[in-house]
Amino acid sequence: MNTPNKTVIIAGITGAMGQQAAELIGTLPDFTLVGGFAPHATPQAKPNLLITNKIEELPPADIWIDFTVPSVVFKNIRYAISHGYHPVVGTTGLTAQEVLELQEMALHDHRGGLIAPNFGLSAVLLMKFAKEAAQYFPDVEIIEMHHPGKKDAPSGTAIATANAINANRDLSSPSNSTETIAGVRGGQVNGIPIHSVRLPGYVAHEQVLFGAPGEALTIRQDSFDRKSFMAGVKLACQKVTTLQSLVVGLENILD
Amino acid sequence: MNTPNKTVIIAGITGAMGQQAAELIGTLPDFTLVGGFAPHATPQAKPNLLITNKIEELPPADIWIDFTVPSVVFKNIRYAISHGYHPVVGTTGLTAQEVLELQEMALHDHRGGLIAPNFGLSAVLLMKFAKEAAQYFPDVEIIEMHHPGKKDAPSGTAIATANAINANRDLSSPSNSTETIAGVRGGQVNGIPIHSVRLPGYVAHEQVLFGAPGEALTIRQDSFDRKSFMAGVKLACQKVTTLQSLVVGLENILD
Amino acid sequence: MNTPNKTVIIAGITGAMGQQAAELIGTLPDFTLVGGFAPHATPQAKPNLLITNKIEELPPADIWIDFTVPSVVFKNIRYAISHGYHPVVGTTGLTAQEVLELQEMALHDHRGGLIAPNFGLSAVLLMKFAKEAAQYFPDVEIIEMHHPGKKDAPSGTAIATANAINANRDLSSPSNSTETIAGVRGGQVNGIPIHSVRLPGYVAHEQVLFGAPGEALTIRQDSFDRKSFMAGVKLACQKVTTLQSLVVGLENILD
Amino acid sequence: MNTPNKTVIIAGITGAMGQQAAELIGTLPDFTLVGGFAPHATPQAKPNLLITNKIEELPPADIWIDFTVPSVVFKNIRYAISHGYHPVVGTTGLTAQEVLELQEMALHDHRGGLIAPNFGLSAVLLMKFAKEAAQYFPDVEIIEMHHPGKKDAPSGTAIATANAINANRDLSSPSNSTETIAGVRGGQVNGIPIHSVRLPGYVAHEQVLFGAPGEALTIRQDSFDRKSFMAGVKLACQKVTTLQSLVVGLENILD
Repeated sequence: MNTPNKTVIIAGITGAMGQQAAELIGTLPDFTLVGGFAPHATPQAKPNLLITNKIEELPPADIWIDFTVPSVVFKNIRYAISHGYHPVVGTTGLTAQEVLELQEMALHDHRGGLIAPNFGLSAVLLMKFAKEAAQYFPDVEIIEMHHPGKKDAPSGTAIATANAINANRDLSSPSNSTETIAGVRGGQVNGIPIHSVRLPGYVAHEQVLFGAPGEALTIRQDSFDRKSFMAGVKLACQKVTTLQSLVVGLENILD
Repeated sequence: MNTPNKTVIIAGITGAMGQQAAELIGTLPDFTLVGGFAPHATPQAKPNLLITNKIEELPPADIWIDFTVPSVVFKNIRYAISHGYHPVVGTTGLTAQEVLELQEMALHDHRGGLIAPNFGLSAVLLMKFAKEAAQYFPDVEIIEMHHPGKKDAPSGTAIATANAINANRDLSSPSNSTETIAGVRGGQVNGIPIHSVRLPGYVAHEQVLFGAPGEALTIRQDSFDRKSFMAGVKLACQKVTTLQSLVVGLENILD
Repeated sequence: MNTPNKTVIIAGITGAMGQQAAELIGTLPDFTLVGGFAPHATPQAKPNLLITNKIEELPPADIWIDFTVPSVVFKNIRYAISHGYHPVVGTTGLTAQEVLELQEMALHDHRGGLIAPNFGLSAVLLMKFAKEAAQYFPDVEIIEMHHPGKKDAPSGTAIATANAINANRDLSSPSNSTETIAGVRGGQVNGIPIHSVRLPGYVAHEQVLFGAPGEALTIRQDSFDRKSFMAGVKLACQKVTTLQSLVVGLENILD
Repeated sequence: MNTPNKTVIIAGITGAMGQQAAELIGTLPDFTLVGGFAPHATPQAKPNLLITNKIEELPPADIWIDFTVPSVVFKNIRYAISHGYHPVVGTTGLTAQEVLELQEMALHDHRGGLIAPNFGLSAVLLMKFAKEAAQYFPDVEIIEMHHPGKKDAPSGTAIATANAINANRDLSSPSNSTETIAGVRGGQVNGIPIHSVRLPGYVAHEQVLFGAPGEALTIRQDSFDRKSFMAGVKLACQKVTTLQSLVVGLENILD
């Protein structure tokens, strides 16, 4: 009685993430890559594997991994759901309205799927734990550290963490420290101070600091390399065919 | 419709923890301290509060907080359960056999209670999160840091953390590093290396380090002061009357 | 050939720091406490020790430790220098003008002394190392963490650290990160971002983060208790009689 | 009045470090690469640059950067010193006896040079600061963290750090903690406990933890990428022509 083998196609198979995903699937005994799609792919057919630049040529499969671009992701996932694929979406850029429309399609077809803005398990677990800890530690600050080339401050993950914490905490006991230099106390999201550090050598890191009388709890995650996302993609592939709806957020399919 | 007020007695009310617990109950609007018990207490009766050195003189109450000593805790809790109190036990020293016997008594009487080796919420959450993270990050090491006066290494919390992690993880990918100096790779509990630091200035701290390709997750807790235990005692008092059995471990009554 | 024994008087001997200093001197074999001064001290004379509330009654001594209050420190130290004591000053509140005047007096009398805004060795070493590292790592940010009761943000030590770093660094390569939430990039002192965290459980902590391509250097100090200042006072007493001028800053008498 | 331009040859120019060094020299306005040497190099002569596999064909130059292999480094550096080059040696494998012999040659010829087991500035500064701090903080432990593929534990840098600390510290006050699990207190170098962590995701990191009553000082360095070594090579090139002897250790040419 083997685990039934699942078939996979990858949209965006020529991109950096798509290539890593293809490599990942190649190492997983229970999954088989049967198709790849990319607008500039050179069409080729090996035994059991079709690479194509025409979406309608793709073979049927259990899972549709999508690492494409914002301009095509909505069209891709609509196609995937309506053609019987379970989507695993790492592409960003879907609007709230588009996500809602896709979720309704998926619900109607009883088709499970996952849209994950972040496939990094350390970041996803940090958010999950921070939300949980906030119930007992309402006093909290966030420090995120990135390379100097990052365009925005704070990071999207830091904002998402603050929102998750806030949804789950009681009244905090704010400090009365007066800023003698503007900005030192950070910027606030829902009353939670966020501090953004930008230094060469750093990649992508986040710390959540909780304090209470006589004790402290700190959760930290470090992302050194995008290859870390593949552990999240693997987890998504293992669970997506058992889901009953189009779930948003890797944290929502963790046990 | 008010929250019904709950009555509390404290065994060991003259000790350091007992006094802090009495102070805590005094600050909680929904709880009333009605009795205190200690072998060397000077008996005194104020309106609605009786301090005594005779256990049988204690008034009935909803909750029995116990911060006594190993030699009497078993007798105390047996008395508490059989006399209708919900026990909240911070005293250490109960044997596994004694815990089992108390749990059977509690089950028979449908009386909920809590035995908590550690009332520090940061330590309890660290263990809970570490256990959960281990499912996704099987490669892990523990570093605990304490003051030089601590008698044993590793700490009981570090051992408990390693056991919790091990119960929940897949096969790890162990390092092949060869020790050129014996001991540098730490001591192992279920294959998980534990490193114990003993330095002046430190109080009681624990870090759990998880690593995976391209990312890391670290959970750290710091206990600076025993007053931090009172947040755990408060939580226990809020939940103990709703429990159906004698639970061991504060982590098992967290939501 | 013994180390010659040195005599000490303590101004402010009834205050918290003065009492700790008296206790410290009592444990040092090469130093003898011969006098204590405080406005509200109960005058008493033990063999070899005079406690008084009249400054002119104080016996001569090698060292004048001053833990008094801003309103009297200037008068005290002027008295100390002109009466042949080597001052070790932990009292804050001297103006720049007063420091200068005292330094001129000390120079004229060839009398060494020390004014130390911070006797915490970990903080002083952090500043020294940060200054030194800045020469090789111009890209740097500071994070300081204190209890919520601290009135100002950032801490004086953080500002002093930024100034020390700035005096010693080349041009940094600033990040272009745009703040989408005002304040997240901290407040700047000489172009160095400072981030101030205020959380219960924390006492007084500072981190200096240096980053460069492919590497990072972090220096952190934690002050848990004012008793840590006594190691700095001891060091000052050991060196002050060999100084040729009135030095400002414990870091300037480190080897 | 320009800084006089200095000429450089690189031995081992075809290796990974040699190539990075060549790239570095290309970006420095005051240095010119005039030659490269490697046994398997394809000989080629561009204007002002000669790549060769015959050592005697190399043009004269101010500086000889060596990133070769243990079996040839001694012969190379002997050649460099006797032919008027200032050596900057990143190759490992010289024996103590060989280093001594090279130092005598260099002394005789008044030729400055540098042998650096570690060109990582963060690691070198960590060692320097740790040595300095040990004078004031005799109680210390070292934690080093590396990827699981590292063959030995502890790291060479951790041993070097312990030796540097030990040369500079007073008696420490050791803990009496008893190991209930062998190894948890680490392995000792000169009485200093070293703890080695081996986890995927980590690259090369070291922490030195100092503790004293009421305070703690921690120095940490992270090496993410070998490209970080180039800052040290640059510094060496800038200073080597002003040295009067063959110095061992980048820390000894820091200001």
